[in-house]
Amino acid sequence: MTFLFRSALTKQGLLMPVLNAVRGMSTSTGPNPLFTTLSITRPADTITHVEFCRPEKRNAMNKAFWSEMVDCFNQIAEDPECRVVVFSGAGKLFTAGIDLMSMASDILQPEGDDTARISWNLRHIIVSKTSDCCHTWSMYWRGLVSTGVDLITACDIRLCTQDAWFQVKEVDIGLAADVGTLQRLPKVIGSRSLVNELALTARKMYADEAKSCGLVSRVFPDKETMMAGAMEMAEEIASRSPVAVQGTKVNLIYSRDHSVPDGLNYMATWNMSMLQTHDLMKSAQAAMEKKSPKEITFSKL
Amino acid sequence: MTFLFRSALTKQGLLMPVLNAVRGMSTSTGPNPLFTTLSITRPADTITHVEFCRPEKRNAMNKAFWSEMVDCFNQIAEDPECRVVVFSGAGKLFTAGIDLMSMASDILQPEGDDTARISWNLRHIIVSKTSDCCHTWSMYWRGLVSTGVDLITACDIRLCTQDAWFQVKEVDIGLAADVGTLQRLPKVIGSRSLVNELALTARKMYADEAKSCGLVSRVFPDKETMMAGAMEMAEEIASRSPVAVQGTKVNLIYSRDHSVPDGLNYMATWNMSMLQTHDLMKSAQAAMEKKSPKEITFSKL
Amino acid sequence: MTFLFRSALTKQGLLMPVLNAVRGMSTSTGPNPLFTTLSITRPADTITHVEFCRPEKRNAMNKAFWSEMVDCFNQIAEDPECRVVVFSGAGKLFTAGIDLMSMASDILQPEGDDTARISWNLRHIIVSKTSDCCHTWSMYWRGLVSTGVDLITACDIRLCTQDAWFQVKEVDIGLAADVGTLQRLPKVIGSRSLVNELALTARKMYADEAKSCGLVSRVFPDKETMMAGAMEMAEEIASRSPVAVQGTKVNLIYSRDHSVPDGLNYMATWNMSMLQTHDLMKSAQAAMEKKSPKEITFSKL
Amino acid sequence: MTFLFRSALTKQGLLMPVLNAVRGMSTSTGPNPLFTTLSITRPADTITHVEFCRPEKRNAMNKAFWSEMVDCFNQIAEDPECRVVVFSGAGKLFTAGIDLMSMASDILQPEGDDTARISWNLRHIIVSKTSDCCHTWSMYWRGLVSTGVDLITACDIRLCTQDAWFQVKEVDIGLAADVGTLQRLPKVIGSRSLVNELALTARKMYADEAKSCGLVSRVFPDKETMMAGAMEMAEEIASRSPVAVQGTKVNLIYSRDHSVPDGLNYMATWNMSMLQTHDLMKSAQAAMEKKSPKEITFSKL
Amino acid sequence: MTFLFRSALTKQGLLMPVLNAVRGMSTSTGPNPLFTTLSITRPADTITHVEFCRPEKRNAMNKAFWSEMVDCFNQIAEDPECRVVVFSGAGKLFTAGIDLMSMASDILQPEGDDTARISWNLRHIIVSKTSDCCHTWSMYWRGLVSTGVDLITACDIRLCTQDAWFQVKEVDIGLAADVGTLQRLPKVIGSRSLVNELALTARKMYADEAKSCGLVSRVFPDKETMMAGAMEMAEEIASRSPVAVQGTKVNLIYSRDHSVPDGLNYMATWNMSMLQTHDLMKSAQAAMEKKSPKEITFSKL
Amino acid sequence: MTFLFRSALTKQGLLMPVLNAVRGMSTSTGPNPLFTTLSITRPADTITHVEFCRPEKRNAMNKAFWSEMVDCFNQIAEDPECRVVVFSGAGKLFTAGIDLMSMASDILQPEGDDTARISWNLRHIIVSKTSDCCHTWSMYWRGLVSTGVDLITACDIRLCTQDAWFQVKEVDIGLAADVGTLQRLPKVIGSRSLVNELALTARKMYADEAKSCGLVSRVFPDKETMMAGAMEMAEEIASRSPVAVQGTKVNLIYSRDHSVPDGLNYMATWNMSMLQTHDLMKSAQAAMEKKSPKEITFSKL
Repeated sequence: MTFLFRSALTKQGLLMPVLNAVRGMSTSTGPNPLFTTLSITRPADTITHVEFCRPEKRNAMNKAFWSEMVDCFNQIAEDPECRVVVFSGAGKLFTAGIDLMSMASDILQPEGDDTARISWNLRHIIVSKTSDCCHTWSMYWRGLVSTGVDLITACDIRLCTQDAWFQVKEVDIGLAADVGTLQRLPKVIGSRSLVNELALTARKMYADEAKSCGLVSRVFPDKETMMAGAMEMAEEIASRSPVAVQGTKVNLIYSRDHSVPDGLNYMATWNMSMLQTHDLMKSAQAAMEKKSPKEITFSKL
Repeated sequence: MTFLFRSALTKQGLLMPVLNAVRGMSTSTGPNPLFTTLSITRPADTITHVEFCRPEKRNAMNKAFWSEMVDCFNQIAEDPECRVVVFSGAGKLFTAGIDLMSMASDILQPEGDDTARISWNLRHIIVSKTSDCCHTWSMYWRGLVSTGVDLITACDIRLCTQDAWFQVKEVDIGLAADVGTLQRLPKVIGSRSLVNELALTARKMYADEAKSCGLVSRVFPDKETMMAGAMEMAEEIASRSPVAVQGTKVNLIYSRDHSVPDGLNYMATWNMSMLQTHDLMKSAQAAMEKKSPKEITFSKL
Repeated sequence: MTFLFRSALTKQGLLMPVLNAVRGMSTSTGPNPLFTTLSITRPADTITHVEFCRPEKRNAMNKAFWSEMVDCFNQIAEDPECRVVVFSGAGKLFTAGIDLMSMASDILQPEGDDTARISWNLRHIIVSKTSDCCHTWSMYWRGLVSTGVDLITACDIRLCTQDAWFQVKEVDIGLAADVGTLQRLPKVIGSRSLVNELALTARKMYADEAKSCGLVSRVFPDKETMMAGAMEMAEEIASRSPVAVQGTKVNLIYSRDHSVPDGLNYMATWNMSMLQTHDLMKSAQAAMEKKSPKEITFSKL
Repeated sequence: MTFLFRSALTKQGLLMPVLNAVRGMSTSTGPNPLFTTLSITRPADTITHVEFCRPEKRNAMNKAFWSEMVDCFNQIAEDPECRVVVFSGAGKLFTAGIDLMSMASDILQPEGDDTARISWNLRHIIVSKTSDCCHTWSMYWRGLVSTGVDLITACDIRLCTQDAWFQVKEVDIGLAADVGTLQRLPKVIGSRSLVNELALTARKMYADEAKSCGLVSRVFPDKETMMAGAMEMAEEIASRSPVAVQGTKVNLIYSRDHSVPDGLNYMATWNMSMLQTHDLMKSAQAAMEKKSPKEITFSKL
Repeated sequence: MTFLFRSALTKQGLLMPVLNAVRGMSTSTGPNPLFTTLSITRPADTITHVEFCRPEKRNAMNKAFWSEMVDCFNQIAEDPECRVVVFSGAGKLFTAGIDLMSMASDILQPEGDDTARISWNLRHIIVSKTSDCCHTWSMYWRGLVSTGVDLITACDIRLCTQDAWFQVKEVDIGLAADVGTLQRLPKVIGSRSLVNELALTARKMYADEAKSCGLVSRVFPDKETMMAGAMEMAEEIASRSPVAVQGTKVNLIYSRDHSVPDGLNYMATWNMSMLQTHDLMKSAQAAMEKKSPKEITFSKL
Repeated sequence: MTFLFRSALTKQGLLMPVLNAVRGMSTSTGPNPLFTTLSITRPADTITHVEFCRPEKRNAMNKAFWSEMVDCFNQIAEDPECRVVVFSGAGKLFTAGIDLMSMASDILQPEGDDTARISWNLRHIIVSKTSDCCHTWSMYWRGLVSTGVDLITACDIRLCTQDAWFQVKEVDIGLAADVGTLQRLPKVIGSRSLVNELALTARKMYADEAKSCGLVSRVFPDKETMMAGAMEMAEEIASRSPVAVQGTKVNLIYSRDHSVPDGLNYMATWNMSMLQTHDLMKSAQAAMEKKSPKEITFSKL
């Protein structure tokens, strides 16, 4: 379970954090009619649960998945009620990574009259995946393989179960990870030596090491408690002022890619309008009345 | 307890590290005559202790605090003897964060003829706080709340007691943290997932997690041992060549915001003069005579 | 033991990871005829072991070492067979740091008609060391002192023994570390507070803290098991597709110094040709046949 | 007349240069059935002419224009034949700038429950215009007003007639130009003093000054000769290897926003595959046979 | 005559453009009582004229000048009425550059116990001049020498008389220009070859070349017409919406130092509040009523 | 004729400007014994003339040229006397660009077992040319073709004769210019529209346009007067303090790739030592005695 993140210059709704509904709460018994790989439920008015729902294939990412993710998050982006998205995988495994069979024709037999033209087409495919899809999401998992790391590094918050393991598997299939792992993993965890080791040897990392290196911020004993924890965290975030939550997310993403002085300049420019929200007065008043933030009703953003 | 840090293009003195005097050594029984919120003592010739001294208000940061911090550190900057500053909070709590009552008129009822003019004035207030004050400091604490995180992330080294806790509380009052937390926290600790979780949920983080995630570099059983540890560390730093200490600080700050090749280029340009210090010869000679660096007398910078 | 790293715009071979042969496997009984400070062996066709071999001086880095390192890695760079380099120190200590006696004439008595000209010459010396030599390497050690940290932060992966300790010793000899520590250490480990403390106080850090802060990714009980572990890791990497390994390394280094969107753009441009490798098809086929990557024969790069 | 430009990480087709068909060649007598503000013709197989076709309103940019531009260029991007786009305005004027009446409800009466929410919605509108539309195009004009400068600075090449004039008109309507002029104009022309003067005083600049400051690269006596010149230039570009043209455009845009070393690194990574095009051999052979590049047939990209 | 410019993160007032009063309008017959080197007049409510007033020394910049400039512009920054500043030199010459005699003790006989400490003190002096003073201004001149170029490149708009000449004179006195010329000149004019030639040979550049290379945006036959032109331009700017003028200035400075995508992101964040100004409605209404912007009354910012 | 430029982190001597000796002064009657494509002469003690000397092939750049340029400038870099280099072409043409026949085997028939390996090898060739050679030089010419633009944009100052013309010819041979033109040309001349037009259409630009767009800073009627002018300019530069000349060059290059605040920070760090040169005092004294800088004797750097 984790939260969605996207670059700052993007559509409104995709900046909202996303978080996973508890599986038992889901009324879906399979993929959503609109999607063949995703199941969408609404555990609360302000929370959407997106479940990667292809367990018979260990949630391997096929071509349908890549395009449905874009459509799904575009729909969520237009939904003014949703404040948090939870993303998880159905079954025991979060994802087994890229479904090589599904991608084979594009990647292994690319079109083009010469090497330059084949390269141009391959770049187009990579950029599409990267910019349209893999900017997104959060998720939970038991075991995570290969491209899955691309997905989770694109999320805001990462949780896992005690028996989860992670693997940057691309080096085992003869390529450098192409949809974000090599860019985001070093900014997501603190140890450069570990990043290099994982990416160059494709060894598995288990939950405890994932927690101590900072890849996940919490480890739960099993999927049930993790999903309950995810839901609780989603509720915490969904209950806060959406002005505060969005401003925090926009500025954290901006800071990742800029110097501290640049980040402070941007922050001041952002807050010169955002400080004028009524939410500030409502929160101050609630604080004086010893009320919890959850008791305040904030307008939609 | 921690050390001061500022951007590289700043006044001379503010680049010196600062560190906390042991409370029992302090002869002050309240705020310094010049300041209503700060107590300044001199536990050693080369060490200044700044204590946030408003314990009856849990060291909440009011308007006086913001301007006195600027004056205080400007004075220290002009003091050629001081080599380290220790910054701590009087009483049980380091700080309860922003004193909303004190800031209310500025933030909640800002002036201006239309939204653009109100925004312009608010930006001016934010920039003043950010650039004049919150570039600074270090501190120790038992519990740290809200804007306090802005302060401590601006420090060089952070120590805490076993019972300390930390909270990025802004999201609870309807705003995105505006004086540095969102910019510096991701560059101060290694886990991006944890930064996002703390900033989006406002949950408390306790000392052990603060140590394991790297926010603090040491945890002490209680305030007395912490202050003694801080003083010892201050003495370690104060005894070193000020040429070496300042050069280390300037270049560490530069490296934070630049690429590795840029950092190496700057370092070479810095050291082309700084290597000509007599301190190098003095140190080399002391090393050959098996003397400790503390036995060397270095000139003032 | 760790792996070589260099900036992206550099010679071909130096981008390959490097890893240490087990000492017992080495047939060398001292320095290589070509080198006075380094011993080069070939524990496997694709693995080169570089050993810092001046144990009677605790592997202190003298002038010969600086220039031999450049020559040695330039030779390796021309060797199409070598895929990994292991770098370690002979004897009990990895390195005692800079051999001040050896560098004394250059640093302590630099030439030049006035301060500007002395500075110009000193900058030339620093840049030579920095850009010609310290971009490189990996290593293992029992204890590591002073400039040694410059070396290890320039490596890909760092291993150590349980009794190893690390020290950024420059502040003790009156200077700011000039060959990479202040630039790379903050990007190598997650805790800023710890980086500042180590660089400003020159205190020793032991193996457990080095592991928990992320400086090393594994700790071994003694040198023998560490060297065996290093060799095993070297074999893991050497058995992978060189296209995948090099692409991973190039892009990880690029990402360190660029924003995430810049990194994704570069990755797409890199992979538009690299995805056309036969290694991908070979790997896919091996995966379908349930073979290990080690059973595949990849062409030289 | 000028050429389209977009950031490097974008859809394939939009990277192709665009250029204006001679008006007399156009068979369109008004807007294209699909568009109310644009007329699309095909003066040659590889050249598309987009004409801003609202002359009765002096080509003022209304809401329909903003969305149709996106659709139009998305269509062109999918067209594998088109290699150049020419963009011009019907009638005497290129554009009178933003149609304030059309945008009034969005900008002057924005929705939202408080200032923060209104700001959030306004930012959404600005970002949509900026990222979806104003990355695009090229054009020719007789007189150009206000937002028109946003459009033309987003183009590759700018031509104008002798009686054309240009104006950055935003300061006259109480706002800072928001869709690219302040970002691109300083990178498009050489004189910073002139950029500041134009943006702060809204004075008109005539064709001769536009030529000497570098805003346009050629001035023509009247629209007919200009359109003929534009067509000739379009044919020049369309006849070249599309691998060479696209690579040139991608790398010029990359270089605008990066340092020279970064640009060289990217160039080398780009060309490692693109140099493998058959176009290079075809061109070399043609050169030896003293043939013009126009006599070579290049594959589609 | 030109306009003030400062980095974006600075005090409010200093972001306003500044422009020169016509000399005949000035009632001052010498320096202002508060200043020994500057004369301050107020040709209009919204326009301040700062005159460098040391003609007997050819307006050479002495130590008093450097500190008075800071005080003067700090005062103007607090003045809510002033919207434009004009800066010019009294007498025939704008400035003869640095007054070496005045600076001699600081620069030629700097204090410090060793080279490192002398360097540290010199850096402090340079940084003070650079960050406190030379961020500022605009001016007019007949002849401009040496450090004067530092001043004028820090301005928004530059005008000159037909007999003016410019010289980057530092190379003639054995140093690299240290207060901004080498940083700003290449971003102010378009020809790199010319920048290099001027800085490396110290040759004079006359008004016509200054105009054609873009250093000045207008040349006037003599000082009287230039001052009249400056006043007219100042009135143009002062009559515009201050929200629009400041936003334009802030974003032009931001764009100079950032990529185009970064600039667009910042612009959107800036305008999400600034578009809510009443000035926009007032301007739209005036436009419909065919009134000039000068007929609108805008609130102070 | 122009001057050498290289990135700041490079060998000492290559940072010196270089300038062309008058042809008649040259005693060489062909290539230097050490070089087959270059003729080296010494018109003055402090000035080296490098002449591209393959006029029978219109100075087309073959493989020998690329490696000899590196050797030649490495030799000059070691020469403490030389302060300026002039680079020109023998005969009527500066260069006809790349000698395709000479490069054919490398570029048209690159080695490698698959596309990825061919790409890796091609990248190695490009990087070698780029980083080893094309960082360099300056030159004069009558006509300049294709890759020649890569060379001249890497120079400090560019001069040409009235009948010179320039062409970015790569697009005519099916590739994007790969050794610097696309990176440097937009930073060398002011008009983006013109850069795009030249690179996308490969049209010739003649001397007058080259002057007005800023590519060259001076145009001479014929080669003799140009060479005399180049020599005069070389003498101007060679007579200045080498501390001032080198500092100017290092900081101009740094500023090209960094923001203004970054540039000012670097400048202050550079000059904290360089201001301690005796050259400053010598120059000040000469100025007081009304002597020309040429009458001062400066030490070697």
